[in-house]
Amino acid sequence: MTTAGSAVALGGGHGLHATLSALRLLGARGRVDEAVTAVVTVADDGGSSGRLRRELGLLPPGDLRMALAALAADDAGGRRWQAVVQHRFGGSGALAGHAVGNLILAGLMDVLGDPVAALDELAALLGLRGRVLPMSCEPLDIEAEVTGLGATGDAPHRIRGQVAVASTPGRVERVWLRPELPKACPEALAAVQDADVLLLGPGSWFTSVLPHLLVPELRDALITSRARRIVVLNLAPEPGETAGFSPEQHLAVLAQHAPELRVDAVLADVAAVPVPERLHRTADPMLTPGGRVHLAPVAAADPAAPRHDPTALADALGTVLAELDARNGAGGPTGPAGTFAGFETRTGSQAIDASGAPDAAETRRPKPWR
Amino acid sequence: MTTAGSAVALGGGHGLHATLSALRLLGARGRVDEAVTAVVTVADDGGSSGRLRRELGLLPPGDLRMALAALAADDAGGRRWQAVVQHRFGGSGALAGHAVGNLILAGLMDVLGDPVAALDELAALLGLRGRVLPMSCEPLDIEAEVTGLGATGDAPHRIRGQVAVASTPGRVERVWLRPELPKACPEALAAVQDADVLLLGPGSWFTSVLPHLLVPELRDALITSRARRIVVLNLAPEPGETAGFSPEQHLAVLAQHAPELRVDAVLADVAAVPVPERLHRTADPMLTPGGRVHLAPVAAADPAAPRHDPTALADALGTVLAELDARNGAGGPTGPAGTFAGFETRTGSQAIDASGAPDAAETRRPKPWR
Repeated sequence: MTTAGSAVALGGGHGLHATLSALRLLGARGRVDEAVTAVVTVADDGGSSGRLRRELGLLPPGDLRMALAALAADDAGGRRWQAVVQHRFGGSGALAGHAVGNLILAGLMDVLGDPVAALDELAALLGLRGRVLPMSCEPLDIEAEVTGLGATGDAPHRIRGQVAVASTPGRVERVWLRPELPKACPEALAAVQDADVLLLGPGSWFTSVLPHLLVPELRDALITSRARRIVVLNLAPEPGETAGFSPEQHLAVLAQHAPELRVDAVLADVAAVPVPERLHRTADPMLTPGGRVHLAPVAAADPAAPRHDPTALADALGTVLAELDARNGAGGPTGPAGTFAGFETRTGSQAIDASGAPDAAETRRPKPWR
Repeated sequence: MTTAGSAVALGGGHGLHATLSALRLLGARGRVDEAVTAVVTVADDGGSSGRLRRELGLLPPGDLRMALAALAADDAGGRRWQAVVQHRFGGSGALAGHAVGNLILAGLMDVLGDPVAALDELAALLGLRGRVLPMSCEPLDIEAEVTGLGATGDAPHRIRGQVAVASTPGRVERVWLRPELPKACPEALAAVQDADVLLLGPGSWFTSVLPHLLVPELRDALITSRARRIVVLNLAPEPGETAGFSPEQHLAVLAQHAPELRVDAVLADVAAVPVPERLHRTADPMLTPGGRVHLAPVAAADPAAPRHDPTALADALGTVLAELDARNGAGGPTGPAGTFAGFETRTGSQAIDASGAPDAAETRRPKPWR
């Protein structure tokens, strides 16, 4: 008997694509419900998304589109529309660089007037079993306090916009949203409240992962949830927003932005953690009783673009969930008892199958989720 | 027992929307097959279509989109996607004025590489029973010889492009295509060859109706077809390309561009033919034995924008088809015998129901099919 449960992944961009792909695999293995939910950041202001947002005043569609594509049905119709939705117009005209799916989503949002209805409609076209939801129904902006920008040394500057924050040459100290205390999308809030498994990260740390913790209702739901909460760390620092950040620094800024948040597991790539002891030390106060840091080989074999391998990530998440269920079965505070047998416990370095990785063409573009 | 048969309407823009709407009604009445085929002009170079065509080198999608919308399923899904497909982005940015359906079609054509596959995919999304096909798989240009433009009186000028021809202040003498002898779209050619009923017009005469006769294979198929061929005349001359044209002049230029074409009926609005005798005289040499001019009330009750009323047009076409079947049943040269009983013969001025008319919002825009 396996334990299924509803899984919700929070994030944006490539990182969210990776967790959604991994959760699909876990769904196919019966480890979580096959209907996976994505809760997606809506603060992008760059690329095709930024142009559409500025021009039409709609939610930036790119991260939402990427999540839909990650969950598209693996049949002829799903694959065909997935290709169309992810396609970008070429040339050098007004449409150059726009993803077709961004334009379809913008049209649906414009006509239906409700981003959730628009996403559900495009989801149906792609044959999704799960659901893609925005973290808020209003477009948001990210602001950051950044040091090291001026001639005067460490005097902090405020910068605004996802592109500005993601590419700053300074050091991001903290981020917040504008409007500062946005309402959560009700359907996204309900999904988080009802989840059995919550995944936070990987992804652009300040601009795709932390924003979910800055929506008060979502943060509260994450903190009080009975779900198993797992943080998946990035494989490498990103030039700009997390340049030079160690894995433990990623975790520390998460704690700084949501001090009350406790998590059940922190998953990191074994090769991306040069000093495991430091990561353990940083994680300790954030962990629930019995929670721990898991190091596993979860990177795809492409040194040019650090990317999680969906199969490896699914294997590692399966191991983490199995351990958490064993803990709960042994009298832990949450979750049903006796569910350990359903999880295959794997460790070490099984062969990595890159076939489930995102479209290789995407890797050539700097910000394909916009 | 009713006579069904495959119906194909050739044209573009609002005129084609009207005949497709009328054929749907005849399909629901069992007078023609419910799966109606549109064969659509691909020479537009204005508006959203023109911008997409220039930017991406694709078929201009606007007339194709309008035809798909006219045939969309009358259920919740069909109506929802019809609204999305017909929606135009507002604002004043790069997307302003683009119809969402034009962008979806462009994306499908770009990805699938085959305009017919792209149209079939969007047709499935809209729940179409019938099919929308381009007259040619390559974008075409219209050229015209126009008189009355220069200071020297009647020296003819050559002008190029649908917009230029449609809006010329001169008098259009004849039109041709560039490339001059384009290949027909094979699926469109097969549909015309297999048709039981062929409708030509109404629509922008030189730029939406005549172009079909300038594709050699299509013209040959129209000429040699065993189908009942019906020309539906416009309600009024159009400023620009047919300014000042009488109904009989419309018919005369049709004959001039395809002298071998014989038709079984010419249908005109009774109020749009000031001197019926002249129209009869012009039509006579173009008609098959037993064919005739039919005058019926087919205009919608909107004096601001002359438009065919789909129900009135369906009623009139039903009458025409019934008469043609009676002729054939009485030993005429084409068609199956004994099919008269299936057609309801109506004449006169039945009440016009405008509920089936195209979206009222469309009437506010100058060229909504682009």
